Amino acid sequence: MARWEPGARERLVVAAVDLFTEQGYDATTVTQIAERAGVTKSTFFRHFADKRELLAAGQEVLSKLLTEGIGEAPAGATPLEAVAAGLERASSAMGPWNRELGPRLKAAVAASAELQERDALKSVGLAAAMTAALIDRGVAGPTAALAGELGVLAFKRGYAAWSEGDRDAADDLAQHALAALDELRAASASLG
Amino acid sequence: MARWEPGARERLVVAAVDLFTEQGYDATTVTQIAERAGVTKSTFFRHFADKRELLAAGQEVLSKLLTEGIGEAPAGATPLEAVAAGLERASSAMGPWNRELGPRLKAAVAASAELQERDALKSVGLAAAMTAALIDRGVAGPTAALAGELGVLAFKRGYAAWSEGDRDAADDLAQHALAALDELRAASASLG
Repeated sequence: MARWEPGARERLVVAAVDLFTEQGYDATTVTQIAERAGVTKSTFFRHFADKRELLAAGQEVLSKLLTEGIGEAPAGATPLEAVAAGLERASSAMGPWNRELGPRLKAAVAASAELQERDALKSVGLAAAMTAALIDRGVAGPTAALAGELGVLAFKRGYAAWSEGDRDAADDLAQHALAALDELRAASASLG
Repeated sequence: MARWEPGARERLVVAAVDLFTEQGYDATTVTQIAERAGVTKSTFFRHFADKRELLAAGQEVLSKLLTEGIGEAPAGATPLEAVAAGLERASSAMGPWNRELGPRLKAAVAASAELQERDALKSVGLAAAMTAALIDRGVAGPTAALAGELGVLAFKRGYAAWSEGDRDAADDLAQHALAALDELRAASASLG
């Protein structure tokens, strides 16, 4: 089987994340990112408006997929079944590249206060998107808020398990995210 | 009954939050904050190292109180009973000043991307602190993570209800936070 080959966009993200880890987010320039990725600066600007957008782009796609998956779940689905549909939809867009990115992104976030803030904002944004999509389905506010948080926890735990696992294995992100959601649902019975 | 009178520290926070709303976080200087609060710049620096610390200080206190309350809950307490003890401990430190600050802080956060990021980071930090305190009590990871998120949601919902309510009423934050926690616990039964 041929190994997966990243395109310019993917190479730019990987180069940026590695440079953020090595020298910090603030100190990294668009010129350096393009150079490391082996593309021109104008290629960078064809894909992203700036360094900040490079990080934000992934979240927008993810929010959209989670929202669509939740919105299109069958009418009789429970709140967690709708969240599961959102997780499946979002996971289906994540391939080998996203799996390889995981540990690099983790290192970059660990090394930078700025990236920790952006990562926190991302979690809060994803929870808000899922909560809003559930409220649109008629789910009551507190249940929707709780299900949204469960969805984010499941996605983060599933993504961590998947991206830290064997990259050549056939398991996909959806399996891990849904297993994490099941685990959290079971955990909710022990809250007291 | 005499109305509550704020000290220099409280006046500095209120002045800062109002200035952030009016002109943005980045554009606001320590000199302007001190002036608006009617104190000298050196008084500012007796209380806070810089503008950023002025915002971070509240979170540190809150994390510490939540952690202590959870840690000192009775040995037989369920995870949510321990979270309730944390919320009670943290609420007990919140007086009329915190109640008045609520709507102002909300306006400042709504007006600034920078403050939205800090607010998101605060939520994630508080959830992590509660989760760690629960794990220290022997609660399993997924249950602790879920209970930590419930604690943050309950605190935020309780604080919003309290600070948007009648400031002269005798209700305290703890009542609202515990009511929100009960509501979320009830909601968890409808997750499906």
